[in-house]
Amino acid sequence: MKILEGKSITDISGIKASGIVCGIKKNGRKDLCVVFSEPKAVAAAVFTTNKVKAAPILVDMAHIQSGNIQAVVVNSGNANACTGEAGLEDAKEMAALTAEYLGISPQEVLVSSTGVIGVPLPMETVREGIKAACAALSKTGGMDAAAAITTTDTCTKTITVETQVGGKTVMLSGMAKGSGMIHPNMATMLSYVITDAAVDKAVLQKALEESVQDSYNMISVDGDTSTNDTVMVLANGAAGNTPITGFGEDYLQFREALDYVNVELAKMVIKDGEGATKLIECTISHAASVSDARLLAKSVIGSSLVKAAFFGNDANWGRVLCAMGYSGAAFATETVDIFFESEAGCIQLMRGGQPLQFDEEAAVAIMAQKLVRIKIDMKDGSAGATAWGCDLSYEYVKINGSYRT
Amino acid sequence: MKILEGKSITDISGIKASGIVCGIKKNGRKDLCVVFSEPKAVAAAVFTTNKVKAAPILVDMAHIQSGNIQAVVVNSGNANACTGEAGLEDAKEMAALTAEYLGISPQEVLVSSTGVIGVPLPMETVREGIKAACAALSKTGGMDAAAAITTTDTCTKTITVETQVGGKTVMLSGMAKGSGMIHPNMATMLSYVITDAAVDKAVLQKALEESVQDSYNMISVDGDTSTNDTVMVLANGAAGNTPITGFGEDYLQFREALDYVNVELAKMVIKDGEGATKLIECTISHAASVSDARLLAKSVIGSSLVKAAFFGNDANWGRVLCAMGYSGAAFATETVDIFFESEAGCIQLMRGGQPLQFDEEAAVAIMAQKLVRIKIDMKDGSAGATAWGCDLSYEYVKINGSYRT
Repeated sequence: MKILEGKSITDISGIKASGIVCGIKKNGRKDLCVVFSEPKAVAAAVFTTNKVKAAPILVDMAHIQSGNIQAVVVNSGNANACTGEAGLEDAKEMAALTAEYLGISPQEVLVSSTGVIGVPLPMETVREGIKAACAALSKTGGMDAAAAITTTDTCTKTITVETQVGGKTVMLSGMAKGSGMIHPNMATMLSYVITDAAVDKAVLQKALEESVQDSYNMISVDGDTSTNDTVMVLANGAAGNTPITGFGEDYLQFREALDYVNVELAKMVIKDGEGATKLIECTISHAASVSDARLLAKSVIGSSLVKAAFFGNDANWGRVLCAMGYSGAAFATETVDIFFESEAGCIQLMRGGQPLQFDEEAAVAIMAQKLVRIKIDMKDGSAGATAWGCDLSYEYVKINGSYRT
Repeated sequence: MKILEGKSITDISGIKASGIVCGIKKNGRKDLCVVFSEPKAVAAAVFTTNKVKAAPILVDMAHIQSGNIQAVVVNSGNANACTGEAGLEDAKEMAALTAEYLGISPQEVLVSSTGVIGVPLPMETVREGIKAACAALSKTGGMDAAAAITTTDTCTKTITVETQVGGKTVMLSGMAKGSGMIHPNMATMLSYVITDAAVDKAVLQKALEESVQDSYNMISVDGDTSTNDTVMVLANGAAGNTPITGFGEDYLQFREALDYVNVELAKMVIKDGEGATKLIECTISHAASVSDARLLAKSVIGSSLVKAAFFGNDANWGRVLCAMGYSGAAFATETVDIFFESEAGCIQLMRGGQPLQFDEEAAVAIMAQKLVRIKIDMKDGSAGATAWGCDLSYEYVKINGSYRT
């Protein structure tokens, strides 16, 4: 597997995209994107487990059944969530209009929306936008598309890799958006991975469902699971590889690349978490089971008190152990080792469940870096997991105290 | 039942208390308290469900088995949590020393600690403090005791009521401390209720376990369940009522008073939540079951995004519905009504699952009050629940970014 710099989804064979200013956002930024695969493609998707599902999610849950998915239309600035029957009609119309301009059927289009909850979509504006975005589709529009799906994000989030599948080079390129209401459960805010690999639809779905467990489902900005979380993979087969129909060597090659793309996008979402000043990576090793390891890692990076301590460079490891304690995982404190590590060094704070003396100045230096690792050795088994979070800053409160205004 | 103003635990017959400056806290505030019941008393307690339990909790889980509990010793400024074997010895010594000065046995003393996690207790200081606090016990020390159990609290939290049990007047007086790491699960940070009622130990335990479900277990400051959560009730029988040994009329009278004391203390903890500028009360009505109602109410007041929106007076009701959606409760959005209410008025934001237009200025005025109610009608059954939370402010981040320093 090779990482390709400076590429985007439109570098994938057969993919065109566009991202335009449609006028939903008040700040004049790009807010509507269309992605189109000229070859027929199969799609896999996972959606939020929130009982309150946005209208586009309901539409996509039906459309994803289609054997062919050739287009995705996304607007930012308005989530089309909690908008009742009218919102559902609006989401259906977004798919129908996109299908009409592209000469495909509505069931072959997936729809996403992200932004403020509970406000009707300005459909006059959206209709004009879809028309313009379909007209603007090009082989150079990938970065515009990545920009058009963002909301409070401070940067676009893209990653492209290539790998070998059945003697052919296949490419995977992903784009995602954050950056608040991030506590995915079976899915994340919005993330799209496009590949020219030929993959059986059922195999693609299984690959995605497994891949999200250790990527998007292991991140949290604020503990709030969104109504709009969506991860999609489109595979159009343009690479000409023998289709992946089982779980052999080709599948594993593809999975490695898919996992890499998903983990990198998930980390980008966290790095750009609302108000975040640093990335916190918590790795659990030697846990009794993978599910225990995941619970422990996610509880630590989800704790408001841990997050605030990291913002203040305060090596308050007691809060780390406390968050492990209420995670729901089974473990014995007597064997726990805890380390904080970054470019500035590594300190051990607890050994075998007993607190250690440590150099406070060294701890502050370690925590003041942009990426700080919490490494926890449970000495209780052979399972592990890693979760990613961000610190809790004044800026998070500021952004979310006045989101709609 | 009657609320008694200006009273404290030492207004209960047979109760003496003290709160002194022992020197654990660096800021020179009171940090050690002893409560002593001269008559023999029975005690009930509930403790944190966090797997990581502070040393005093482990000691108390043994001592609470004792048929007679006559004293409580509490230090603030240090939680004696995650302190290993040495911490456990320290907690035992706190009970033993207190017992020695009061002429009772160690098993008749309960111990609590609250403050920073993972730092050994300064036992030289604590030993001197216990000696001084036992010497200072008096019938006027109740308010000093309430002050000595606080940490980042900005005020003391006490409530006293009297009620009639079996023709006798009995009094209940409680004191509690907050104000961070508040997301109790079976218990709260530290709360002590003292009564002169005569109550059978098993009945008292059942009364307490039921009472915490709708009081302490329905509040959250930051979603972090502490290692030290403890609620205790001491009943010394000095009122001379026929002991409450069953669940008849006398029990119900007593329960009403106990519930009132616990709910008021829980609300005081939330009002004084770290950095809080307002109290948020979320009431769920007409839910399918009490457990659904509790899940829904607690999920709403626990959402960082809801809390930040309330800090900013932003009527972002979509976040309320979103938090209901990931609460784990079963419900249909189609019947949900949502209202925001305060002294400044009431607005309806959603009817039958459909968003309503509302006056933004009126919404800001309603949300700018010190107590704002979120009222949610599920139209789905006859169960209800109320939860209390606070907003998320810059100050919370500031307090918790530098807690140890």
